[in-house]
Amino acid sequence: MREQQIRQLDAWWRAANYLSVGQIYLRDNPLLRRELAVDDVKPRLLGHFGTVPGLNLIYAHANRLIRERDLSALYIAGPGHGGPGMVANAWLDGTYTERYPAVTRDLTGMTRLFRQFSAPGGIPSHAAPETPGSIHEGGELGYSLSHAYGAAFDNPDLTVFCVVGDGEAETGPLATGWHGNKFLNPVSDGAVLPILHLNGWKIANPALLARIPEEELVNLMRGYGHDPIIVSFEATDAAEDVHRRFGDALETALDRIAAIQRTARDGAAADRPVWPMLVLRSPKGWTGPVEVDGLPVEGTWRAHQVPLPSARDSEEHLRQLEDWLRSYRPDELFDDSGAPLPDTVALAPGGDHRMSATPHANGGLLRQDLDLPDFHGFAVEVESPGAADAQATAVLGRYLAEVIRRNPRTFRLFGPDETASNRLAPAVYEATDKQWNAQILDLDEHLARAGRVMEVLSEHQCQGWLEGYLLTGRHGLFNSYEAFIHIVDSMFNQHAKWLEASAQVPWRASIASLNYLLSSHVWRQDHNGFTHQDPGFLDLVVNKSSDIVRVYLPFDANTLLSTYDHCLRSVDYVNVVVAGKQDSPQWMTMDEAILHCSRGLGTLPWAGTESDGEEPDVVLAAAGDVPTEEMLAATAILRERAPEIATRVINVVDLMRLQSEDAHPHGLSDADFDGLFTTDRPIIFAFHGYPWLIHRLTYKRNNHANLHVRGYKEKGTTTTPFDMVLLNDLDRFQLVIDVLDRVPGAGERHATLRQELHDWRIEARAYTREHGEDEPAIADWRWPE
Amino acid sequence: MREQQIRQLDAWWRAANYLSVGQIYLRDNPLLRRELAVDDVKPRLLGHFGTVPGLNLIYAHANRLIRERDLSALYIAGPGHGGPGMVANAWLDGTYTERYPAVTRDLTGMTRLFRQFSAPGGIPSHAAPETPGSIHEGGELGYSLSHAYGAAFDNPDLTVFCVVGDGEAETGPLATGWHGNKFLNPVSDGAVLPILHLNGWKIANPALLARIPEEELVNLMRGYGHDPIIVSFEATDAAEDVHRRFGDALETALDRIAAIQRTARDGAAADRPVWPMLVLRSPKGWTGPVEVDGLPVEGTWRAHQVPLPSARDSEEHLRQLEDWLRSYRPDELFDDSGAPLPDTVALAPGGDHRMSATPHANGGLLRQDLDLPDFHGFAVEVESPGAADAQATAVLGRYLAEVIRRNPRTFRLFGPDETASNRLAPAVYEATDKQWNAQILDLDEHLARAGRVMEVLSEHQCQGWLEGYLLTGRHGLFNSYEAFIHIVDSMFNQHAKWLEASAQVPWRASIASLNYLLSSHVWRQDHNGFTHQDPGFLDLVVNKSSDIVRVYLPFDANTLLSTYDHCLRSVDYVNVVVAGKQDSPQWMTMDEAILHCSRGLGTLPWAGTESDGEEPDVVLAAAGDVPTEEMLAATAILRERAPEIATRVINVVDLMRLQSEDAHPHGLSDADFDGLFTTDRPIIFAFHGYPWLIHRLTYKRNNHANLHVRGYKEKGTTTTPFDMVLLNDLDRFQLVIDVLDRVPGAGERHATLRQELHDWRIEARAYTREHGEDEPAIADWRWPE
Repeated sequence: MREQQIRQLDAWWRAANYLSVGQIYLRDNPLLRRELAVDDVKPRLLGHFGTVPGLNLIYAHANRLIRERDLSALYIAGPGHGGPGMVANAWLDGTYTERYPAVTRDLTGMTRLFRQFSAPGGIPSHAAPETPGSIHEGGELGYSLSHAYGAAFDNPDLTVFCVVGDGEAETGPLATGWHGNKFLNPVSDGAVLPILHLNGWKIANPALLARIPEEELVNLMRGYGHDPIIVSFEATDAAEDVHRRFGDALETALDRIAAIQRTARDGAAADRPVWPMLVLRSPKGWTGPVEVDGLPVEGTWRAHQVPLPSARDSEEHLRQLEDWLRSYRPDELFDDSGAPLPDTVALAPGGDHRMSATPHANGGLLRQDLDLPDFHGFAVEVESPGAADAQATAVLGRYLAEVIRRNPRTFRLFGPDETASNRLAPAVYEATDKQWNAQILDLDEHLARAGRVMEVLSEHQCQGWLEGYLLTGRHGLFNSYEAFIHIVDSMFNQHAKWLEASAQVPWRASIASLNYLLSSHVWRQDHNGFTHQDPGFLDLVVNKSSDIVRVYLPFDANTLLSTYDHCLRSVDYVNVVVAGKQDSPQWMTMDEAILHCSRGLGTLPWAGTESDGEEPDVVLAAAGDVPTEEMLAATAILRERAPEIATRVINVVDLMRLQSEDAHPHGLSDADFDGLFTTDRPIIFAFHGYPWLIHRLTYKRNNHANLHVRGYKEKGTTTTPFDMVLLNDLDRFQLVIDVLDRVPGAGERHATLRQELHDWRIEARAYTREHGEDEPAIADWRWPE
Repeated sequence: MREQQIRQLDAWWRAANYLSVGQIYLRDNPLLRRELAVDDVKPRLLGHFGTVPGLNLIYAHANRLIRERDLSALYIAGPGHGGPGMVANAWLDGTYTERYPAVTRDLTGMTRLFRQFSAPGGIPSHAAPETPGSIHEGGELGYSLSHAYGAAFDNPDLTVFCVVGDGEAETGPLATGWHGNKFLNPVSDGAVLPILHLNGWKIANPALLARIPEEELVNLMRGYGHDPIIVSFEATDAAEDVHRRFGDALETALDRIAAIQRTARDGAAADRPVWPMLVLRSPKGWTGPVEVDGLPVEGTWRAHQVPLPSARDSEEHLRQLEDWLRSYRPDELFDDSGAPLPDTVALAPGGDHRMSATPHANGGLLRQDLDLPDFHGFAVEVESPGAADAQATAVLGRYLAEVIRRNPRTFRLFGPDETASNRLAPAVYEATDKQWNAQILDLDEHLARAGRVMEVLSEHQCQGWLEGYLLTGRHGLFNSYEAFIHIVDSMFNQHAKWLEASAQVPWRASIASLNYLLSSHVWRQDHNGFTHQDPGFLDLVVNKSSDIVRVYLPFDANTLLSTYDHCLRSVDYVNVVVAGKQDSPQWMTMDEAILHCSRGLGTLPWAGTESDGEEPDVVLAAAGDVPTEEMLAATAILRERAPEIATRVINVVDLMRLQSEDAHPHGLSDADFDGLFTTDRPIIFAFHGYPWLIHRLTYKRNNHANLHVRGYKEKGTTTTPFDMVLLNDLDRFQLVIDVLDRVPGAGERHATLRQELHDWRIEARAYTREHGEDEPAIADWRWPE
């Protein structure tokens, strides 16, 4: 490296560090053109300095190599607490001012930059949607590598610098995130350069990976399939030495990546390459106060947040803060107006090559609509309701296979080893393979070095990869067992918050929705039983902003097709779709399904017995495939045995229609709700999930007091499908009993029917216990006409 | 090993394999005393064979060494699908029949054993609470190592054989679970022997760790701090060779463990030992059908579940099944009555040394009540409501320090680097240290080789360790940031299901409750902002059985003390306690707090203005520290400015009191609820979490239509505490406005007050935006008397 480069690297580093400290502390006197006074210091000192200097060092050096090698690069800051660093770098390279014109590159802008940080009405203290160049929220930890790999898939020209914090490195998702390298194709995907940043401490504890022998650390990284390059710095190291050694290390890493890609792209390599990674050991709170009040700070956990906590209350701390700020020699870095001097920013790449400005970090700019086939072509023929049987997810699989064929570079399916189990296979494997860059044996089926299906037994990885893929402008779907999607509850929360906050950021372009397909659901766990039964993800999802979340429960194959076509066209949502994979009756033609799904809910006139112009005696509603099947069987029993009861039958596909207009944009108006559900007739509602969710969604509705919901009551075991609905009182017989209990004036005939159904329920359970299968005659109680 | 031992090992292995296959397939003719007929085969073939032979091999060999070395051992089967294997081993060693006397050790019992498996009314297909010897549910994957370490803590004489499945090994929690070895003290804790079971395949995909070069695998294990011993078997290996080699490997591993413990316990070692681990490579579906219908099955993913799926429908499969069963030579293993022959079970240890019978796997047998101090001694002096300030969790910390002193071997605190941040420190570190067996530096504080506080930045590890610790009969507490407890949503679900299922298993003794302390809660995230704001764990928790879950929102230090004393005495629950860590006003004396907590909710007569014998105009309720403070400030405003409005003020500590009696055992009767909340007066409810949870809990109550709830509406950012309540309309001013809007006949004075409060809200927001802190005068609007 030339001397000049080293000087420029150091200038950038000092400037970024200065601006970071300024954000944490200053509300005035931004460039110390006068002595620092108490009133220059913010009243509330918030933020995290500890990790920032390391992040800034990496950023500066990445800049140099982006310029030299004309790289397209993305920066992921795993230690999200490094927010001020990310912002400082974006301000230095000019992106910040382009995004936020009020934050100019002068003293006024610098003052704004400092004041807004971690302040009410300002910007968050972590990397966030507001941060140019970020696709990675710095709130919860653990997902940096998964996001990095997601970003790299199908971006062969992209290099992702992924800084992994040493706290984050202890989390489970990150610990398995390293294995992303077995799923990356060096020909058709980009490169991820993990940089494990060991600054040694978390909030109050040492970081584990900083406290194992170096030999163990090297083994660990080699075990993860990486070739580690270790660079260690002490607080006392000379800046020139720091830049020379770190610059060399980064150069070496990029050389190796280039060599791997060249070999692979020349067709010369079939084996999985061993990708480089960097370990950067540096003191926490590097370049900050060495000691405060007689206690060591730099290089300890005490530097995690605000190294000088009493800068406003103690003259000594105030002077120490001033010394600290002046140690970066700001006068050499900024001109009189407060703008960075040319040498300070000489290393910054231009235009879209600035990591803060790359469109990959604002993926909506790159997003192209999917080329979607006409889903009519995949419809199940339904001559009359219930006349055909089909596996809904298998039908969807055929449609998705065509989506994959038409979008060979922008759509991927993610799943934890359940794509086949959830019946999307075999169809999708006629169109593509599972991408897998570990060993392949002759025995293997549908494994290949490149493919559209990503399977790893880690829901965290699936979700993280998909998030990274979407945030960089592509499309995808995550299929999982319903119960185990709870594994990523917290990731869902963070992504929903990201979407919600992004909607307030004018320069962020819309990204494709995150689509869940939850199958192997609560009602069909014959194999697996109680541990695999949990429909509660829906309860979690509806806690998030109604601007973001959508929940669909298509009840047959054609409604699933119509729903998914809609989901794949949508942006900025999280779409949760629950669908069955077992053979089950089909209810709607494709045209009926489209109309029904566009309304989100509606009556099934062929199942009800109400007369035109008269209110029914009872409203029978259902959401979900199994509940609807039970409800429709119940209506069949009613039509045959109690035809004088006037019923209205409603199916709900779009759960959010149940909420009030003011609570959710999909919410039905009260007038429409009353028109469908009446204001005074009993409603029996058969629901896929926990029953109280329906109460929660409808508690403001006029007829709520007459609403009676059946659903999963946490009663489960390894048993037959019909026994499961029996156990939870969601079965056809109980639903008829519920009607008889609520419709007055029934007389003796109803009492007899009630008793008969009651006995049937007991017999059905006993039969199942004895024979290990459902009483075959139960099928006779299905739509008898 | 002697020839005889090898013969006995093989006999056990064949017997366990035979009994496993029998469970999956047979409903009659259990020992093939006649030709296998179609009707001998179950109608529904459910279960998972693939992993079972490996589990059985390990079990057999562990048996031998337990006998030889007089070990106390626990077996954790990470591949939970291996349920039939666990059951088979327990039947062979006699435990099964002791627990389930109807399942005798003869032909009748064997028939029952087979029929009950994965059958309605029978037992689950996975290892489960019903399985003797198991503390590890085989539903969700990823937690075997965390459970193993939790079991080993404070059990110096225990050896945990922990089988890690190769599917499970891909999950995040398991990938970080290996680091448990840095937290184990070889002197005061027991040993964990991880056995990574590479059988090569998951449901439909290869397992990652089976497809990396052996050198990488060895590096990975060394990087995790283990010394790996690899044993590999092919389907064609002779049984004698299998037993000899696996026996030698297991012996070597146990020798090394013994040496490590001896050295450490002699005081000779200060460095962290490198513990052994085993890698067992063996074919999936080992000993099963090699090929079915011309396709390879043994050694492939096709052996995952039922290798011969059509045994009832195809004569060829039926004959193949018979051949398979007979290949274990059952006639050599069982006598005429169906009981195991002496040589078959010669290796089984006796009594409690049987892994299926160890009391460590039925921890309630070992559990001793904690020695708890009188919490009066830790009370905050409260002369009048609001007169004192305190940090609730810091007060609890002083109490917990004493709990730790009194229970030096049976109580631990778990947390993800937040014990200090949540203010349990410094007090708890006066009583103990953080246990840490990685490198310790002079700089470190409160780190030691042994201690009661376990901190690792992985909520998964914290939860898994605590579960393992509780399930083996000890006590503990998990403290975490409220928002990030969602990381373990799915683990909570699984543990709650375990507790619920255990309650139905008569021989399972009660274990200590799993106690959460959630602090750094949604309302106090000034530092961290939106990503750290999520009170939704409560919504998830209340989905689980009301027999299991308890939710407490103590609103000051004394109510927190009283609550936690109760939690630490309870068994078989999950107690979720949300508490503040910031300085905030204290409301109740200790005696008042005890009475209040024993009722779970109650009026605060000093805050309300109702007259005896008359219904109030409005009921003001609150749950949580911040909402209660806001509500009490609102009552102060009302007392001063609208004293003619008769108010009743209620605080709710035990959230489950709101539910109906029939929905939760803590539920208030409707009469009591009506007495408190009236049947027709408006209720303004200020709630800590998402407001709809209160609606969900109360929708059956008479006065529900008049209930108006304020809570967290997913509006958040980095801002001041008061700005947060303003943003979500939970502030004192809005609460007064809510009252004025609902109490009729107020006249002009109320209109003026309403306008004044409205203006105040706008000004308060503007002040915060401008000054970065709350308007100081807001404090004047607090209980003005």
